Amino acid sequence: MGEFDLIARYFTRPVRRAALGVGDDCALLQPAPGTQLAISCDMLVQDRHFFADTDPCQLGHKALAVNLSDLAACGARPLAFTLALALPEVNEPWLAAFAQGLFALADAHDCELIGGDTTAGPLNICITVFGEVPVVNGKSQALLRSGARAGDDLYVSGKLGDARLALNAMQGKLTVPAAVLSAARERLQSPKPRVALGLALRGIASAAIDVSDGLIGDLGHIMKGSGVGATVQVDQAVSAEPPGVHVSLEQWRTLALCGGDDYELLFTAPTRFRAAVAAAAQASQTPVRCIGQIEAAAGLRLLDAQGRSLPNHYVSFDHFA
Amino acid sequence: MGEFDLIARYFTRPVRRAALGVGDDCALLQPAPGTQLAISCDMLVQDRHFFADTDPCQLGHKALAVNLSDLAACGARPLAFTLALALPEVNEPWLAAFAQGLFALADAHDCELIGGDTTAGPLNICITVFGEVPVVNGKSQALLRSGARAGDDLYVSGKLGDARLALNAMQGKLTVPAAVLSAARERLQSPKPRVALGLALRGIASAAIDVSDGLIGDLGHIMKGSGVGATVQVDQAVSAEPPGVHVSLEQWRTLALCGGDDYELLFTAPTRFRAAVAAAAQASQTPVRCIGQIEAAAGLRLLDAQGRSLPNHYVSFDHFA
Repeated sequence: MGEFDLIARYFTRPVRRAALGVGDDCALLQPAPGTQLAISCDMLVQDRHFFADTDPCQLGHKALAVNLSDLAACGARPLAFTLALALPEVNEPWLAAFAQGLFALADAHDCELIGGDTTAGPLNICITVFGEVPVVNGKSQALLRSGARAGDDLYVSGKLGDARLALNAMQGKLTVPAAVLSAARERLQSPKPRVALGLALRGIASAAIDVSDGLIGDLGHIMKGSGVGATVQVDQAVSAEPPGVHVSLEQWRTLALCGGDDYELLFTAPTRFRAAVAAAAQASQTPVRCIGQIEAAAGLRLLDAQGRSLPNHYVSFDHFA
Repeated sequence: MGEFDLIARYFTRPVRRAALGVGDDCALLQPAPGTQLAISCDMLVQDRHFFADTDPCQLGHKALAVNLSDLAACGARPLAFTLALALPEVNEPWLAAFAQGLFALADAHDCELIGGDTTAGPLNICITVFGEVPVVNGKSQALLRSGARAGDDLYVSGKLGDARLALNAMQGKLTVPAAVLSAARERLQSPKPRVALGLALRGIASAAIDVSDGLIGDLGHIMKGSGVGATVQVDQAVSAEPPGVHVSLEQWRTLALCGGDDYELLFTAPTRFRAAVAAAAQASQTPVRCIGQIEAAAGLRLLDAQGRSLPNHYVSFDHFA
C-alpha cells in the first residue's frame, strides 16, 4: 500500500464545514463572520508521550483529545484539524484502529479532518486543531492565560493525578489494585477534553489553561501571563487517594499537583460569578471545585486544610529539564 | 535550558497580524472578511527528508519553504504558521541557526510564527501554514488540482531535477563537477517557493500543484483530480543537462521527471490566457514554459522533440512504496 492509497483509505472523509478537505495542496476553511480562529498544535512522540504497545485506538483518541483540550482551555468550539503522521511501517490493522479512535472523538465534537501529511519515520503524530471563538462588540470571547485578577477564585475541573498514577504503576514504580489501575489507565490513555466546560465558561472565566504539565506548573503560566500570585488550598486541589494505593501523603500530593496529562481545566473567575461557575459546571456536566484565590502579591502560597503553610517543592514536567 | 525557555528564546516573536501569537493554549487568527484560509501541513523527518548533518539554517529555511510551496500552488498569500519540533537534545547553536533560516524566509514572505509545540524525540519538524485566498462573488480564487480542462495548456516553472541530481551525487550514485553540485545542492537544501507566481496566476491558471514528488506523479494528481488526460513534450519539460554531468539521456530524463523536491509550480491554463501566463511569469520574475496539453482522453502520453511516442516508465516518489 502506497502513501496515497493509505491516505485515501484511512484518512479521507467528505467535509461538511470546510470549503475543501483532504486531497489538494491546501485545505480551505472560511470562518464565520465575526469569529476568530483558535489554533493549537500538539506533537506526540513514541516512548515520550506513549508506549510502543499503546492500543492504537486509544492513541488516535488521545492525539486529538490533547489538542481539543487546548481549544477547551480557550473556550473555542472545535471545527477542524490537520494530521501529520510519521509511521515506521504501513501496518493496516494499526492504522484502522488508530483512525477509528481518532474519528470517534472527532465526530463526538463535530471536528473534521481537513488535511495533513504522511511520511515514513519514527512514530510521530502531530495534530493542528482549529476552533471558533466569537468576537462580541470587537472583543474576543477567547479565554486566555492573561486575564486573572487579584481577588478571583481559582477553580479546577475533575480529578488530578490519575494519569500519573497509571504511568507510575505501569512503570512498576508503585503497586495499585487492578480496578484502580484500570480506571487510572483510562484517564491516561483516553482523556476526555473539557470542551463543553470551556464553552460554558465564556464570559465567566477570567483566565483558563488546561492541565497538561501538572497543576503547579500550569498555574504558573496563568500567574506569569496575568502578573499575579495565588494561594492554593492543597487539600481542596488534591482529591482523596483511591483505596488500596499505598503512598505517603506527600507522594500522593506530588502525583496530583505535578503529575500532568490530566487535561482538566484550571481557571479563574471573579467572585461575583460563583453561581455562574456552578451553573456552567452543571450545564456541561463537569465537576468543578474552588481550590484557591488569585492575589496581587507575586508567588504561589500553598496551604493545608488547617491553614498551615506548606513548602512548595513541586516541579512540573519539562521535556528538556 | 527547559522547554519554555527554549520556546521563549528561539521561537517567540511579537505578532503583527494575528490577534494572539505564541504563549497561550491557542493562537488567534481572524481572517479578513471575504477571504478563505488556505491550510497546509508538512512533516520533515531526519534521514527521510534530510541528512543528520544538514546545515540547520538551511533546514529551517526548507521546513517552511515546502509549506509555502503548497500555499503558492493554491494561489494563497502567506499569513502565519505553527511549528512543532521534536528534538533529540537541546543544542543551542543548532537551534539558533535553525531559527535564523526559518525566520529569514518567514520575514521574506511576511508570514509569522503564531504557535506550536516542542518535545524531546527523534528530530522531526512539522509546520502547518496558513494563507489567505480571496472569495470574489462567492467564488474562491484558490487554484485547485481539479480545474484542468481539455484543451488547456500545461506549464511548469523553473527547472526540474536539480534537487535529485544533488541527492544522487551526495549519495555517491553519480559524479558531477563541483560547481554543478554546489548549484544543485542549493536547489535541494534551499528551495525557493514560487509564492509570487502562484499569486500572479489567480484568475488565470485553471489548476495547479507544486512539484514535490516528481513531475509525472504530481501531474497524475491534476489528471485524477480534474478527470482528464495529458500529453507532455518531454524535451520541453526536461532542461538540457548541466555540463560535465555524465548520465545517459534516459537517466537524465528520469531525474527531471521523477526526481521530486523541486518545489516548482505545475499548472494549466486555457489557451486564451497565453499572454496572461507570460505576463504573470514576468511580473513574478519566474521562468515558465509550456510543456504540453490537457486532453479529454484519459492517461498520460509522452512525446519527444520529433513527436515520437516515449514509453512511460516513470515512477514518482512514495514514502511507503
